[in-house]
Amino acid sequence: MNRNIRTDLAIELRENYESDSAIEGVDIKTIINEDNSIKTTIIDVLDDNGVNKLGKPVGTYITIECTELNEYDEGIHEPLIKELASQIRTLIKDARSILVAGLGNRSVTPDSLGPLVVDNLMITRHLSIEYQTDNNLIISAICPGVMAQTGIETVEILKGICQNIEVDALIVIDALAARSSKRLNKTIQLTDTGISPGSGVGNNRKMITKDNMELPVVAIGVPTVISVPSLVDDSMDLIADAFNQKYGKEIMKEFTDEQRYDLACSLVEPELVDMFVTPKNIDELVKRISFTISEAINSII
Amino acid sequence: MNRNIRTDLAIELRENYESDSAIEGVDIKTIINEDNSIKTTIIDVLDDNGVNKLGKPVGTYITIECTELNEYDEGIHEPLIKELASQIRTLIKDARSILVAGLGNRSVTPDSLGPLVVDNLMITRHLSIEYQTDNNLIISAICPGVMAQTGIETVEILKGICQNIEVDALIVIDALAARSSKRLNKTIQLTDTGISPGSGVGNNRKMITKDNMELPVVAIGVPTVISVPSLVDDSMDLIADAFNQKYGKEIMKEFTDEQRYDLACSLVEPELVDMFVTPKNIDELVKRISFTISEAINSII
Amino acid sequence: MNRNIRTDLAIELRENYESDSAIEGVDIKTIINEDNSIKTTIIDVLDDNGVNKLGKPVGTYITIECTELNEYDEGIHEPLIKELASQIRTLIKDARSILVAGLGNRSVTPDSLGPLVVDNLMITRHLSIEYQTDNNLIISAICPGVMAQTGIETVEILKGICQNIEVDALIVIDALAARSSKRLNKTIQLTDTGISPGSGVGNNRKMITKDNMELPVVAIGVPTVISVPSLVDDSMDLIADAFNQKYGKEIMKEFTDEQRYDLACSLVEPELVDMFVTPKNIDELVKRISFTISEAINSII
Amino acid sequence: MNRNIRTDLAIELRENYESDSAIEGVDIKTIINEDNSIKTTIIDVLDDNGVNKLGKPVGTYITIECTELNEYDEGIHEPLIKELASQIRTLIKDARSILVAGLGNRSVTPDSLGPLVVDNLMITRHLSIEYQTDNNLIISAICPGVMAQTGIETVEILKGICQNIEVDALIVIDALAARSSKRLNKTIQLTDTGISPGSGVGNNRKMITKDNMELPVVAIGVPTVISVPSLVDDSMDLIADAFNQKYGKEIMKEFTDEQRYDLACSLVEPELVDMFVTPKNIDELVKRISFTISEAINSII
Repeated sequence: MNRNIRTDLAIELRENYESDSAIEGVDIKTIINEDNSIKTTIIDVLDDNGVNKLGKPVGTYITIECTELNEYDEGIHEPLIKELASQIRTLIKDARSILVAGLGNRSVTPDSLGPLVVDNLMITRHLSIEYQTDNNLIISAICPGVMAQTGIETVEILKGICQNIEVDALIVIDALAARSSKRLNKTIQLTDTGISPGSGVGNNRKMITKDNMELPVVAIGVPTVISVPSLVDDSMDLIADAFNQKYGKEIMKEFTDEQRYDLACSLVEPELVDMFVTPKNIDELVKRISFTISEAINSII
Repeated sequence: MNRNIRTDLAIELRENYESDSAIEGVDIKTIINEDNSIKTTIIDVLDDNGVNKLGKPVGTYITIECTELNEYDEGIHEPLIKELASQIRTLIKDARSILVAGLGNRSVTPDSLGPLVVDNLMITRHLSIEYQTDNNLIISAICPGVMAQTGIETVEILKGICQNIEVDALIVIDALAARSSKRLNKTIQLTDTGISPGSGVGNNRKMITKDNMELPVVAIGVPTVISVPSLVDDSMDLIADAFNQKYGKEIMKEFTDEQRYDLACSLVEPELVDMFVTPKNIDELVKRISFTISEAINSII
Repeated sequence: MNRNIRTDLAIELRENYESDSAIEGVDIKTIINEDNSIKTTIIDVLDDNGVNKLGKPVGTYITIECTELNEYDEGIHEPLIKELASQIRTLIKDARSILVAGLGNRSVTPDSLGPLVVDNLMITRHLSIEYQTDNNLIISAICPGVMAQTGIETVEILKGICQNIEVDALIVIDALAARSSKRLNKTIQLTDTGISPGSGVGNNRKMITKDNMELPVVAIGVPTVISVPSLVDDSMDLIADAFNQKYGKEIMKEFTDEQRYDLACSLVEPELVDMFVTPKNIDELVKRISFTISEAINSII
Repeated sequence: MNRNIRTDLAIELRENYESDSAIEGVDIKTIINEDNSIKTTIIDVLDDNGVNKLGKPVGTYITIECTELNEYDEGIHEPLIKELASQIRTLIKDARSILVAGLGNRSVTPDSLGPLVVDNLMITRHLSIEYQTDNNLIISAICPGVMAQTGIETVEILKGICQNIEVDALIVIDALAARSSKRLNKTIQLTDTGISPGSGVGNNRKMITKDNMELPVVAIGVPTVISVPSLVDDSMDLIADAFNQKYGKEIMKEFTDEQRYDLACSLVEPELVDMFVTPKNIDELVKRISFTISEAINSII
C-alpha cells in the first residue's frame, strides 16, 4: 500500500479519477439524506484491479460527509448519529461482544479522538457478566496509548487482550490524516480493512487487521490533521502557476502522486516532515465529533 | 486472605502484635537512615504460620516510611528516590525487560497515582528495538484503566500483553487503602506477592500475582485513601471510652479485627461503605509522590 | 452564621424541625412533578427570626431533589434540565449579561463540578460584541481556581472581573458539603444569598455575596462530599445506642448541633478533620451532574 | 506594529538585517555560555528609529536559545534554569509581589504552555498573608483561559485582578508563533514590552502592556507553533528556485516581507489561514519546557 500520498481517506484517492467514470475493480455507491446535509459514499474495493487503482486493500470504505460536523448545530446531531449507528451495525454484522479501542495520544489534542470516544461509551461487559443483562451488544473498551507512551506496538496490546477475553469483533477509533483541508473534521470513514495506528499524526505503526487480530476489525476514523508535505503538495499547483503562468500547471501534471509528494517533502525543512497542521479550535472539534461517535455506538447497545 | 480488615499495608497488620515480640513465621528487619527521615521495614512472611498470623501471603513486604513524603521538601527527595530505587532493584532481581502497569482511574484523584507514575517514566522498549540501545532496563508501560472504564479485569489485560511481548518482570503501581490516617500518603509499600487492583478505592478485583501472570510481579503501592468503615473503626475506641469510661475500652478489646470491622460497617449507612476518605490536598500529594516513584524507576534505567 | 454544623444545604437545616410545623420567619413551599421523580423545595428565610432558626441569611433557598440524578437515566435528563432552567431564570430575574464562575479545583474530582460546568457552556459574550447577536443571555465565564493554586481569594478575582466588564448578574457554581450521605450527588441547591467557595472540600473562604460583589449573585451547588466529622456525627446515635442501649440515644438528644459536632471533631484524629468523604464513582457522578447544569444554562441562552 | 510577518520573535526580525551591521536605534548584545549550549541575545529597541527598523515597540527583548531545550537532556536543565532565572530577575527589577498569568488554552497542546507553568509554581501569596513568611517574592497566579472559553479579553481579566490585590509586577507566560521551524521549542523570549495573548495559535487579542496594566509587565514566551502561511512563505524561495532556476530566487528578493506573506496567504486555501503547524511530540516538548520555566521562577522565590 502506498502510504506516501499521505491520506487515510479512500474518498480522496477516488478523486484522482474523473468523478463520473467507473473504476475497474471498484464499486461506488452514494446516498444523500433528505435535507442534503449528510452524504454517505460506500466504496467497495473488489479485487486486485481495484487495489492497484485505489492503492487501498480489498474491502469496504464508508465515508460519511457532513459539512456541519465541525459546527455547533444541534439539528445535525440526531440524523448523523443515526446514519453512523446504522453503518456501524452493518459492518459489525452479527458480533455481540465487542472491544472498542480508542487509539491515539490523549495529550495531543487532534490525536485524542479515540480516547475521548471511549470516555463516553457505556461499558457493559462487566455488568453483563455480573448480572446476566441482555443488551444487544456487550461492550468492553481500552485506550492503549501510543508507542512513545508504552514502548509497545498497539497491535501487540490489542492482540493480547482479545486472546484473553471472549470478543466477536474489534472496533478501533483513531484520528486520521487528510490530504486536503476540505474534509478535515467533516468526514467519518468506516472500513473493514483495518487501520495503521497513529497515522493521524504521521506515525505509521503496524497495521491492525482482521488477519493479524484473527477477528473482524471495524476501523472508524476522522481526519483531524494534514501533514506538512501534503499541505505544500496542495499549494504546489498554485505556486507553479504563479511562477510560470504559461506552463506551471502543465508541468505539475507530469508528476505522479508519489513524485509530487517527494517534491513537496524536498521543499520543506526536514524538521517539518514530522509536524502536522490542525485548526486552532481543534479542542472543540474533537470533543464534538467524539461525542457523536460515542453516542452512535451507545445507541446500538 | 482476609480483606475485611481494610488495610493493604503489611506494616499495619504487624501492629496488631506487641512491637518487640517475634512473630512465628515472620521475619522483620528495620533500617533507619542517617538523619532519621526514612525508615524501611522489611517483613518476610516465611510460611503458613506467618500467613495465619499476618493474614498476608508468603513473600516480602517492604515498607518505606517518610514523614515528609507528603510535604514539599526538596531535601527529602534525593535520599528517598535512592532508597526506593535500591529496593525496587532488589525485588526485580536480574529482570531486564520490564512492563510497568499504572493501575487506577486517572479521573479520580487519589486513584490516579499509577497513571501519573507512567506519565513520567522514560519509555525505552521501542528505542531499544529500533536502535539497539544498551540500557540496564528496557521499560514498556501501560495504563489499563479500571473495570468501570474497560469492562475487563486488569489481570486479563496485563496477561494478554505479557504473552505478546517479551517481558522478564511486571511492576504494578496502584493506590492503596490504609486503616489509619497516620500512614496516608507517607508510606510506600513494595511486595513480590502481587496486588488486587483498585483496593485503594475499595474495589477488590482479581489478584495480579506471579502465579497467574507466570512471571515475577513487583507491586508498588501508596495508601492514598481510608475506607469509611476503617475510619469509624478507628474512632470506635474513643467513642466507646466516651460513652462508658469504666469499661468502654475494655469491651472493645474483646472484639477481633473482623468483628470490629463488621461492627463499624453496621454503624454507617450502607451507601457509605462504597465511599472513601481522602485529604483535601490529595491532588498535590499524588502528584509529588508519583514523581518520586517515577524518578526512582528512571534512575535505574 | 454557624458553619460548624458542616452542611451547606438549607434543606438539611430545616430537618432539625418537626416536618409539618411552621418555622417562624421561614416560608416553605414544595413542588413535586408528575411522575414523582423531581421534588423542588423553596425555603424563604424572611427575617431575623428565620435567620436564628435556620442559621442561614435572609434569602431564597431552592432545593431540587432527584433520586436518579446520580444514576444513568436518560429519562430524567430532560425534565430535570427544564426544572433547573426555570428556577435559574427566576433567580436571575431580568439580568441579560451574566458571568458564570466555575469555582473549585479541577484536579480534585469531587471539587471539579464548577470547572466542568463551564467547559460545556455556550459562551456568547465575545460573539455578541463582534456580531451584535440577540441572544436572551450574554454569557461569559471564568474558572478562577482555588486559593492553593492562585494565592488569591476567589472573591477578589471575581470582583476585579465584574468591575472591568459590564455584567448584570453573577452565577457561581461550586461543589458543596452535605451532612448526610442521603443527599450526596442527588440534590441541586440554588440560592440568592451567595456562597463561601470551597466549602465542598471543607475550606471556607471569603463569602461571595450580592453585597460585596455589588450585583445579584445566584449560587448553584451540588453536595459532592461529606466532611469526616459530619460522618462521625452521623454515626454517633447508632454508636451511643450500641454502647448504652438504655440511655444512649437519650443522652445524645441533650447535645446541641454544635456540641455534637465538637464531640465528633474530638473523636477523630486531627488529620482527619481536613479530609473529606466521597463515593468511589465520583468521576461519573460529577461528569453527569455538571452536564445537567450546563445544559440547563445553555437552554435559556 | 506589523503583525503580518507572523513571528513573535524579535530575533527573527533582526535576521532580516545583515548579521554584523549595526541597526540604528537598536542595541544588540550576545552572551554564550561556557560549553556553547546556551546563547542569550539581548535586543534593546531604543527609539523610533529602532521601532521602524524592527517593527517592535521600544523595550528589551531577551532571547535564550538552547538547541537541547527540546531534547531530553538532564545536563542542560540546571544551567538553563539558572540563566532564565537571572534574566527574569533582571526584568522584574525590585518587584516583590508578583502575579503570574499562564495564558493560553489548556486543551490545545501547543497552547497549554502557560497553564502548565502555573501548575508547577510555588504559590506563596496566601501563605505570606497568613504566616507573614519572608520570601523574596510573593507569588500569586491565574490561568485566565482564552476568549473562546471565557468570552472576555484576557487583559480585562488581568486588569481586574491587579486592581483588587496588591501587585508590583505581572509576569505573563504564553505560547508564541515562530516564522521558521529552526527556533520552534528551542527558544525562550523575555520582554518588558507586553504581549498579545493567543498569538501562538494565531489569535491576536488586545495587548497586555505596562501602559494598560499600569504596572511592569514581563512576558515570557516560547514559540510552539508556526502559522501555515509562514510555512508556505518559508518554502517559497525553494519553490521559486525549483520553477525558475535562473531568476526564481532573484524574483523573490523583490518582495517585501508583507508582500511575501500576502502571497503566501493567497497560495493556501482560506481555511488553512486559521490553522497552525506543530510537532507530533508537542506534548512532551511543552511539558519539559514549562517545567524549566516554572523551576526558574520557583528558584528566585
